[in-house]
Amino acid sequence: MNKGHLIIISGPSGVGKGTVIKRLMQRHERLRFSVSATTRQMRPGEVDGVNYYFVTKERFEQMIANDELLEHACYVQNYYGTPEAPLDAMLEQGYDVLVEVEVQGALQIRKRRPEALLIFIAAPSFAELERRLRGRGDTAEDKMQKRLQTARWEYDMAAQYDYIVINDTVDAVTDEILAILTAESCRASNRMQFLKEANEHALSPDVGAAETH
Amino acid sequence: MNKGHLIIISGPSGVGKGTVIKRLMQRHERLRFSVSATTRQMRPGEVDGVNYYFVTKERFEQMIANDELLEHACYVQNYYGTPEAPLDAMLEQGYDVLVEVEVQGALQIRKRRPEALLIFIAAPSFAELERRLRGRGDTAEDKMQKRLQTARWEYDMAAQYDYIVINDTVDAVTDEILAILTAESCRASNRMQFLKEANEHALSPDVGAAETH
Repeated sequence: MNKGHLIIISGPSGVGKGTVIKRLMQRHERLRFSVSATTRQMRPGEVDGVNYYFVTKERFEQMIANDELLEHACYVQNYYGTPEAPLDAMLEQGYDVLVEVEVQGALQIRKRRPEALLIFIAAPSFAELERRLRGRGDTAEDKMQKRLQTARWEYDMAAQYDYIVINDTVDAVTDEILAILTAESCRASNRMQFLKEANEHALSPDVGAAETH
Repeated sequence: MNKGHLIIISGPSGVGKGTVIKRLMQRHERLRFSVSATTRQMRPGEVDGVNYYFVTKERFEQMIANDELLEHACYVQNYYGTPEAPLDAMLEQGYDVLVEVEVQGALQIRKRRPEALLIFIAAPSFAELERRLRGRGDTAEDKMQKRLQTARWEYDMAAQYDYIVINDTVDAVTDEILAILTAESCRASNRMQFLKEANEHALSPDVGAAETH
């Protein structure tokens, strides 16, 4: 069985990552979502191992020290990170594994795992991104300006991703991501086993006949 | 408008390239087929500029001397080659352009045009390729052995292609090639204009307002 793809998805706040990922999970049977570890408090309705692995600060710092994380970061005095072992277990079983992570985390992962596919979800235009953010109607103007500033920086960094998909409609962008996964499976570097087997057969045309002696 | 993709397709004799290309042309509106130049005699029913550009030996050798060909080769004392100018005109108009060519020609094109997408069509197995070749029933055993030997060499070279698609069914392999084209359009390197425009808008939020003064 071929190993799955490690897929890293980022995009600015408001671009609709959550909706796209939900649709992807519905349309791609062998896709699994990587569960992050965090030191923040569990909230009502959250389940350990589903929403996050909820761990203590001591355990998290031990994971850092043991090099158990693909990437990690600190927000509002809490740690967040991507444990490597469960993700590798899924890849080995042939599942594609999706990690949703901020730009800095994505670039950390790229260094550690050069085979990772970095996909950036952009809005059709910056004006549309601003419209979507304002449409939520729940954010003060200073926070809004901060988000837009972060988004500008993220767009700058997007040039370092492998792929940029544009979230015009959820179905169109999901089609694009699924096409990327199909194309990556067709890369010659992922077909070496196929070529090896084809050539072994081709170079020993008499093996089958010899076995009947 | 974005320039189109230059798509190079090769595959062993008998793998079904013609059928796949026909289906691709039906399913992809903005795909054009590159017409080769040749010095061989026009056959009944063939049309100059459609099946081939039929040219004299002198004209062909002038094209070689003028560096007008993406690749060329000689078979059975006739020249065959891919004229570059008409192909570039189509790419500039945003068409994807498909060149069907032998492995050696494909690798010539890769050197000259590193952006070309090299796609190799393989049979599901070597046994299946042999079955398809024999199924034609029109080839003497010594010619058959020669074709299989060529196919073995072509499979060896396929590792140098960008993508290897497996012709299990015509529709499945056509889906794969279309996915490759979609994915290539999403490559960050093909989105630089999009990012530039997004950032220009983002960095001058007052331009629109100023224009109304």
